[in-house]
Amino acid sequence: MNSGEFRRRGKEMVDFVADYLEGIERRQVYPDVEPGYLRPLIPTTAPEEPDTFEDILNDVEKIIMPGVTHWHSPYFFAYFPSANSYPALLADILCGAIGCIGFSWAASPACTELETVMMDWLGKMLKLPEAFLAGQGGEGGGVIQGSASEATLVALLAARTKVVRRLQAASPGLTQGAIMEKLVAYSSDQVVATLGTTSCCSFDNLLEVGPICNKEDMWLHIDAAYAGSSFICPEFRHLLNGVEFADSFNFNPHKWMLVNFDCSAMWVKKRTDLIGAFKLDPLYLKHGHQDSGLITDYRHWQLPLGRRFRSLKMWFVFRMYGVKGLQAYIRKHVQLAHEFERLVHQDPRFEVCAEVTLGLVCFRLKGSNKLNEDLLERINKAKKIHLVPCHLRDKFVLRFAICARTVEFAHVQWAWEHIRQLATDLLRAEKD
Amino acid sequence: MNSGEFRRRGKEMVDFVADYLEGIERRQVYPDVEPGYLRPLIPTTAPEEPDTFEDILNDVEKIIMPGVTHWHSPYFFAYFPSANSYPALLADILCGAIGCIGFSWAASPACTELETVMMDWLGKMLKLPEAFLAGQGGEGGGVIQGSASEATLVALLAARTKVVRRLQAASPGLTQGAIMEKLVAYSSDQVVATLGTTSCCSFDNLLEVGPICNKEDMWLHIDAAYAGSSFICPEFRHLLNGVEFADSFNFNPHKWMLVNFDCSAMWVKKRTDLIGAFKLDPLYLKHGHQDSGLITDYRHWQLPLGRRFRSLKMWFVFRMYGVKGLQAYIRKHVQLAHEFERLVHQDPRFEVCAEVTLGLVCFRLKGSNKLNEDLLERINKAKKIHLVPCHLRDKFVLRFAICARTVEFAHVQWAWEHIRQLATDLLRAEKD
Repeated sequence: MNSGEFRRRGKEMVDFVADYLEGIERRQVYPDVEPGYLRPLIPTTAPEEPDTFEDILNDVEKIIMPGVTHWHSPYFFAYFPSANSYPALLADILCGAIGCIGFSWAASPACTELETVMMDWLGKMLKLPEAFLAGQGGEGGGVIQGSASEATLVALLAARTKVVRRLQAASPGLTQGAIMEKLVAYSSDQVVATLGTTSCCSFDNLLEVGPICNKEDMWLHIDAAYAGSSFICPEFRHLLNGVEFADSFNFNPHKWMLVNFDCSAMWVKKRTDLIGAFKLDPLYLKHGHQDSGLITDYRHWQLPLGRRFRSLKMWFVFRMYGVKGLQAYIRKHVQLAHEFERLVHQDPRFEVCAEVTLGLVCFRLKGSNKLNEDLLERINKAKKIHLVPCHLRDKFVLRFAICARTVEFAHVQWAWEHIRQLATDLLRAEKD
Repeated sequence: MNSGEFRRRGKEMVDFVADYLEGIERRQVYPDVEPGYLRPLIPTTAPEEPDTFEDILNDVEKIIMPGVTHWHSPYFFAYFPSANSYPALLADILCGAIGCIGFSWAASPACTELETVMMDWLGKMLKLPEAFLAGQGGEGGGVIQGSASEATLVALLAARTKVVRRLQAASPGLTQGAIMEKLVAYSSDQVVATLGTTSCCSFDNLLEVGPICNKEDMWLHIDAAYAGSSFICPEFRHLLNGVEFADSFNFNPHKWMLVNFDCSAMWVKKRTDLIGAFKLDPLYLKHGHQDSGLITDYRHWQLPLGRRFRSLKMWFVFRMYGVKGLQAYIRKHVQLAHEFERLVHQDPRFEVCAEVTLGLVCFRLKGSNKLNEDLLERINKAKKIHLVPCHLRDKFVLRFAICARTVEFAHVQWAWEHIRQLATDLLRAEKD
């Protein structure tokens, strides 16, 4: 395929994608397929000779789409949102075409520098303490990781390296092995200090945990994977109070800030803590500026060596929405969650099971776990909407998460009427 | 931005990207900017109100492009290739729009199933032993990781879990800690068994290492990050002989197989080895089919929880090039490396420092390391081409890697004349 054909096919793909997203609400949110559906539909080996683009695009509709769970349908209320916006899609096209692998400053200076500045922009939007920002000569700074799990692992390894060095400096006779044996990582029952858990969006109390960590010289990592995006709204920023005690902080713009996956934002107060743990300097990655102290080589901040130009997505999204647009988006989702909560409260058969702080409502039918498992099964078998459950203090609970960019009150209201109807059917069947 | 505006802007972006790639050879391959260049060019905070798309696209040319190292310029001969093709760009647009997070089969069945089948297609293209394929009821199978580093870490953790369980089964009194203390990971001086090292593309002898590992019940992980793509050509497949002794095998289609980053292909002989090490089953990720034994939940195969629909890129590339097209692409790059090798041999001032097997030529001026460091500095300061060095047995060596999809003999020949001219200037300056 030459660039001329790409111009043509690329535009067809843009239309295909726009058609898909425009019409997504008419597709069944959860697919009908059974495990193993796809293999018989395609050849057992790659073709020797090229297929045409028309064939492939037809197969997308015929073979792929019937097996897709439509995360961006306004009837998708499962898990947590996965970001998807037009500005991010546009940026990703550019990112793919530039196709640089920004493991060092020299490997593509713009890739590194835009990331540093975008992480400062985002840190300021969250009103993170100055110590987390890179600025012109700060000791902290931000980095884009692939996922919150990676950020947690990076923080854990950095913390371990730091404490080993500290103890070895104090007692030069201690071996690394002897120290590692004694190390303990504390976590809550949802892992590390968490703002906005996946199950029910609960919040750890940083103002209690933080000072203890600081006093005991323990690394404090805070994970706000989902909730973090909301902190750009002044009315939710208090949920982040205590972040000043942390050594590292992470949240996922690829969840709730319209920046397509992957884009997990991580900040540290001392970038030397990360670099110390991961430094990798083979000759083929050295460059003239690296010992100047002026530059960032992001390969020392992460597990993989390679990295895409992901900050372009942040830049496009922040600029095309503006901070006000992003705030409005968060507020709309939170408001929809409260509208759903209000609807649940109006039906005495149901109960709300956790405080609704952001975009998640945990609810259930008053009654046994079995009853609620049956209700969820009916909901997900009907495939008009899609939900997943969680356990809260041994209770089986349904999670209603506001997810899609395009979800409106009408969708929420329709979903609730649908759930009520299925509950009525279930309760009647139970009686018979 | 609504879908109507996306149609318009998306098409502009397609043209922008096609213009960029068409004209890339007229851009200076390595940028002129100094560290810190970007920050003063953009505001210190995100805008409150939205910017226009025109402003942003103008800024891409004004602010981003001057700081880009053009990895896809036919004058880029540094590191290793980073894949970039039109079919992969098209697939990535679709991947972004579907925007599913395929951590479980249920989270998007097509995302999981296409990946399993594409990894079988690719395994067959490489003539991997049957044991590595998923097939209809195999015990092995493939998974897309983000990078070779992640694949290595996954293999290491799986190996550790496996040996701990084996030893604990044999001696139930042993604690995990006591076992871990005694574990050893063997590696070559380039880490794990490697086919095609980064420095000079050398190959470990699997036929020697493999039987020892099998006899001693040691996990053997093979990393062929760069070289792996070449094994689709029958004439290079012998380099993979011995893979039958391995427990896991990995290479990066995102390097040399035209599938844009990230796409690191990893296979295991026993998928239960991975799942045993990483299994994560909170209630909100459970689904009806998961205990049927029929399905794959890829979150158990990797470190992060989330994952994109990356197999679409493989599907588009394999189908739009066909196996023959991919083989022709590999062969062309290898041939260009040999043409460069031939040119180097013709100039008695230079020597070739390692066997040229695939697309990399290691060469130097006969003489001191200092002389070669000076030559490389002149090359990279001139910014007409871009190279990086390596150390081979204490010698400072220049690496000439065939990288860009569009590189032709004329570019290689021009690069060589340029290098020769700079060498002549350098040697003359040394004399004076």
